[in-house]
Amino acid sequence: MFFASDNAGPVPQQILDAMSAANAGYQSAYGADTIMDQVRAQIRDIFEAPEAAVYLVATGTAANSLALATLTQPFQTVFCTPVAHIHEDECNAPEFYSGGAKLTLVGQSAKFDLAELRRAIETEESRGVHGPQRGPISLTQVTEKGTVYSLDEIRAICDVAHSFDLPVHMDGARFANALVSLGCSAADMTWKAGIDAVSFGGTKNGLMGVEAVIFFDPKHAWEFELRRKRGAHLFSKHRYLSAQMNAYLADGLWLDLAQKANDNAAYLAKGLRAIQAAEFVYEPAANLMFVRMPRAYHQAAQSNGAMYYLWDGDLEGDPDEILTARFVCDWSLDLNQIDRFLELLLAVQA
Amino acid sequence: MFFASDNAGPVPQQILDAMSAANAGYQSAYGADTIMDQVRAQIRDIFEAPEAAVYLVATGTAANSLALATLTQPFQTVFCTPVAHIHEDECNAPEFYSGGAKLTLVGQSAKFDLAELRRAIETEESRGVHGPQRGPISLTQVTEKGTVYSLDEIRAICDVAHSFDLPVHMDGARFANALVSLGCSAADMTWKAGIDAVSFGGTKNGLMGVEAVIFFDPKHAWEFELRRKRGAHLFSKHRYLSAQMNAYLADGLWLDLAQKANDNAAYLAKGLRAIQAAEFVYEPAANLMFVRMPRAYHQAAQSNGAMYYLWDGDLEGDPDEILTARFVCDWSLDLNQIDRFLELLLAVQA
Amino acid sequence: MFFASDNAGPVPQQILDAMSAANAGYQSAYGADTIMDQVRAQIRDIFEAPEAAVYLVATGTAANSLALATLTQPFQTVFCTPVAHIHEDECNAPEFYSGGAKLTLVGQSAKFDLAELRRAIETEESRGVHGPQRGPISLTQVTEKGTVYSLDEIRAICDVAHSFDLPVHMDGARFANALVSLGCSAADMTWKAGIDAVSFGGTKNGLMGVEAVIFFDPKHAWEFELRRKRGAHLFSKHRYLSAQMNAYLADGLWLDLAQKANDNAAYLAKGLRAIQAAEFVYEPAANLMFVRMPRAYHQAAQSNGAMYYLWDGDLEGDPDEILTARFVCDWSLDLNQIDRFLELLLAVQA
Amino acid sequence: MFFASDNAGPVPQQILDAMSAANAGYQSAYGADTIMDQVRAQIRDIFEAPEAAVYLVATGTAANSLALATLTQPFQTVFCTPVAHIHEDECNAPEFYSGGAKLTLVGQSAKFDLAELRRAIETEESRGVHGPQRGPISLTQVTEKGTVYSLDEIRAICDVAHSFDLPVHMDGARFANALVSLGCSAADMTWKAGIDAVSFGGTKNGLMGVEAVIFFDPKHAWEFELRRKRGAHLFSKHRYLSAQMNAYLADGLWLDLAQKANDNAAYLAKGLRAIQAAEFVYEPAANLMFVRMPRAYHQAAQSNGAMYYLWDGDLEGDPDEILTARFVCDWSLDLNQIDRFLELLLAVQA
Repeated sequence: MFFASDNAGPVPQQILDAMSAANAGYQSAYGADTIMDQVRAQIRDIFEAPEAAVYLVATGTAANSLALATLTQPFQTVFCTPVAHIHEDECNAPEFYSGGAKLTLVGQSAKFDLAELRRAIETEESRGVHGPQRGPISLTQVTEKGTVYSLDEIRAICDVAHSFDLPVHMDGARFANALVSLGCSAADMTWKAGIDAVSFGGTKNGLMGVEAVIFFDPKHAWEFELRRKRGAHLFSKHRYLSAQMNAYLADGLWLDLAQKANDNAAYLAKGLRAIQAAEFVYEPAANLMFVRMPRAYHQAAQSNGAMYYLWDGDLEGDPDEILTARFVCDWSLDLNQIDRFLELLLAVQA
Repeated sequence: MFFASDNAGPVPQQILDAMSAANAGYQSAYGADTIMDQVRAQIRDIFEAPEAAVYLVATGTAANSLALATLTQPFQTVFCTPVAHIHEDECNAPEFYSGGAKLTLVGQSAKFDLAELRRAIETEESRGVHGPQRGPISLTQVTEKGTVYSLDEIRAICDVAHSFDLPVHMDGARFANALVSLGCSAADMTWKAGIDAVSFGGTKNGLMGVEAVIFFDPKHAWEFELRRKRGAHLFSKHRYLSAQMNAYLADGLWLDLAQKANDNAAYLAKGLRAIQAAEFVYEPAANLMFVRMPRAYHQAAQSNGAMYYLWDGDLEGDPDEILTARFVCDWSLDLNQIDRFLELLLAVQA
Repeated sequence: MFFASDNAGPVPQQILDAMSAANAGYQSAYGADTIMDQVRAQIRDIFEAPEAAVYLVATGTAANSLALATLTQPFQTVFCTPVAHIHEDECNAPEFYSGGAKLTLVGQSAKFDLAELRRAIETEESRGVHGPQRGPISLTQVTEKGTVYSLDEIRAICDVAHSFDLPVHMDGARFANALVSLGCSAADMTWKAGIDAVSFGGTKNGLMGVEAVIFFDPKHAWEFELRRKRGAHLFSKHRYLSAQMNAYLADGLWLDLAQKANDNAAYLAKGLRAIQAAEFVYEPAANLMFVRMPRAYHQAAQSNGAMYYLWDGDLEGDPDEILTARFVCDWSLDLNQIDRFLELLLAVQA
Repeated sequence: MFFASDNAGPVPQQILDAMSAANAGYQSAYGADTIMDQVRAQIRDIFEAPEAAVYLVATGTAANSLALATLTQPFQTVFCTPVAHIHEDECNAPEFYSGGAKLTLVGQSAKFDLAELRRAIETEESRGVHGPQRGPISLTQVTEKGTVYSLDEIRAICDVAHSFDLPVHMDGARFANALVSLGCSAADMTWKAGIDAVSFGGTKNGLMGVEAVIFFDPKHAWEFELRRKRGAHLFSKHRYLSAQMNAYLADGLWLDLAQKANDNAAYLAKGLRAIQAAEFVYEPAANLMFVRMPRAYHQAAQSNGAMYYLWDGDLEGDPDEILTARFVCDWSLDLNQIDRFLELLLAVQA
């Protein structure tokens, strides 16, 4: 009954097999391996972007920080939401990699509000040289709250950004989960909607620690390579990253894994709807959800082994107090575990 | 006939097996996995350092830069040799991670000259607030030229450093190769000689991309953890790093691999001594060596598939001109390949 | 009719005279001048802090950024209000000087709300290594909105900060204006209330460009000196900074200048109360104020030469629309100019 | 008898007068003062560069660091000599401002050797993404050893730099001293020879603390303004910097002051040639010189009040040992003082 995170589960056998297969003889180091050529070709193909610059790093924070640093001057500010991973969960990595740029928090929610975004952009630079200058917009797809931007929403954000000549970065730590949720193409969800750079996540969707960074305009390529090396994120034995990403993209594995995770979440959500005391904070759209329930439910579930985070309190206290839980489902989750968890909740309800 | 590097070969089967074994169910993320507990215990045991702070990262540059950043203030300078990896091969990563500290290059060789080191330390701070302040000393063991510091040499360097209250960092990218060369204990080669922090390499000796950072004084622990996270070097699925390092240390695998690499190099060196035109630039002591030979030899070898770097020229030109080659042997090298290479050289000699 | 700023007026004759007097023969450079000894002694005396570390820099941004950098680690966050000068008007200088620390914006107002401050501090670090760590609190006295913290308010903020072992910095760009407003001692308003470091402004109160940085705990002294030099803020001909600050502090000139500025503002405020359409956004307490009036008043005033900033619009548009103006009075303001300005407003009212 | 520095003397009366004259009424802040318009026009006129971007800062380290940061990426290296002020005397400010770029030390002398410069440039980037990338060349005119580059020498350096598409910065802390030494125009010594950016010193030649930064290509203008503000080097009461620089440039005052300083140095040098035990380390060409003499001479001079730095020892020890002294003459030096100093030396000789 593990719903705490999608970065704590195992990797599919195909990934291990690909790594074993890659483990023969010598391979050029530092990204010059032949498997990386295949990765690059697959990503360009999937994204319908034959010119795209494609790189691998090992952590999502590296992907985000390096992508943003390439798009940001140190006297600028990056526009993001107050719950953005780059703001809350990267221990100042974006500030570090950009040389001290600021993050401007827009609105109160996990999705940009267009009017607030426009106002925030307009406000920065109203002070001329005194305030930070406008920098890139970074949106997260799937959002940190489990919602998914529609193509129209992404397009509208990019339109605002581009009207100020600002680039847009997508933190796609759960890119595949969003894609299968929307049922569109990778190109639709990115450059066709106006996205300039993507952190294309693999780790939360079944890899050991591999993320791609994609720039649709290859002019950023060499600077990114230098920033990656300077950040100590260039792997000598790069083939083991390439092999993972290559197997991940082959035969739609990445989409299958995301579909499984989303299906698991839908199954859990359906079950939770039968709990009258449970209330969704946001309508779940991918593989994570926020649910409010009385503490008694959490006590029953967690004391029996369910693992997930409470967002606004702990197990001690009034059993009737409502607490928010975050449930994340990964591809490897066993439906029996979900059933068992739901039974625990139903037992409280009874 | 691959002598170009020890970061381009495969990993031993034990490492793959350990990763597969680790690939079951959920594990706590971000270094809280139970395998890391075993790694920590093994390293503390091997180093006879029960209090040591032990962390894993995925690249040698990350290990060096993060270890040094933890020991260095941005207004200080790090003392190293002009061929140090941290100076030549990390694209300013130490400067980046330290917030802009300087590197002071001491002497002309890959080993510190004690008198020059002392003079360099004395010179920095002769300018009071105007010049950079003295920071840590960083030495490389095995050196970038294939030589190995003796315990006395390490002790003497540490004594100089400590007489100025400066810490000493060891870049141990080839730690195991040095250790089997010296035949001493890990404790002897580090804290017993005065070393304060170690980049304990695994990647060049058979891992996919895992290095440990060890501080013998645990007071640096929390700062290091924050710097690692801020540098985007904290892995969510950390267990796959742990599993590799754990298998590497178990049953002396790490020492066996290093012994093999060193034996391969000794075998190659012995063969090269039969080539009258070949001259060792330094007496080889571990798994890499620099050898001067006429271009004709390099032409014959490389045109027949031998792979290694020429340090001071290329294949085009006067066949009698002497060029320096770097030969690196990894654990996986096949002795037949060395034989074949030597035959190519002998054919030129004939 | 210049109410735009207190950094655009002349300096008193005493300052020029002191600079001329200092302009004889050679003086030790880089802060070792004998006049600096007098400055240090005067500040220690005024602040009743015989051990305080005292330094001069030339801009308020330098004072704030260097003081904060000395108190902040790059993986921490500085707590300030959303209108803090360090956030809005320093073009990421605090982020730059701290090596990439974050600024956490607390509340909605120019004064800290205690409960919000406590909540903000508690929230940061709830994410362990993933989020930024807690760093110093920075408050502004006089606030950017013209209000003044009472001693009780300062004490309460410092108590909260110290309960988390966090230091408190005071941006005292208008320190003297606050002091004469409160009628307390410099010690009362700072270390006796719990303040750890002060940016002690001189420029807005009559100097050409001199600010002191004061640490009540001298342990920060040498690090600050190195950061000042590294930031290029150490003056070789430091005597001309010393001479200004020395004359400023002598015979209470600094307090006289602040009193004049505050009196000018009080005179203006009194006049504005006679304008029925004028409304104070905050009760003015020092030498600046925010006032809402219909556009017609601003049109009349500015078209006749009054200079001040409109905060939320410009002169074009509906004459009845209410716009917020900021009025700042410096020591050199002529009361006749205020009278003339008020007459322009009264003419509209008529 | 003060020969220790040219940053410890007084400023000419014209400068004080100009500051007093500027001290009337309100002036636009932050560099928008009308006097700055005159400064800009004068510098463009003097440099025959009608498009040049011209800015003022208060310290030489700020001028150098900000100019270089504008020309350098953080993954690059700046080429300079081992005695460059930016390397030895700025406490890592260039590293700080550039975001962690490296300084590559070329040759052993205060002047670039062309072959060594070319080799150093060629060497950097031989390692591809692993080493730092090539960045700007920074030369110092007058050099730190008192020598002066000829126009041909400057042109040759710039030609090398430009053949690699690298910009050239001139640290002109003693720009005027070099100019009167060469007897050429400011344009000849800079952009006509290929210089891209100049730190145009005023402080060592009679100002309180004002340096101009000049970019001949105005494309750097806005980035420089942002970097200056972010570095806390933008003065609100900028008029007092402008007034100094304006008076300095008017009526050739700057050249007169430099001529005086150089004449003083020539007078001293001539006198020193009469001391048989004195030997010039470099042929003096401007207002500073390095002279070797037995310790007995230094003992006699310094015990009688002469002030200057010994470069390689102190007064204690064998009177016959040869020690190197640096003598710097500023514009305000009294010839009687030089005579008195020479008499002290002659007395030892007798």
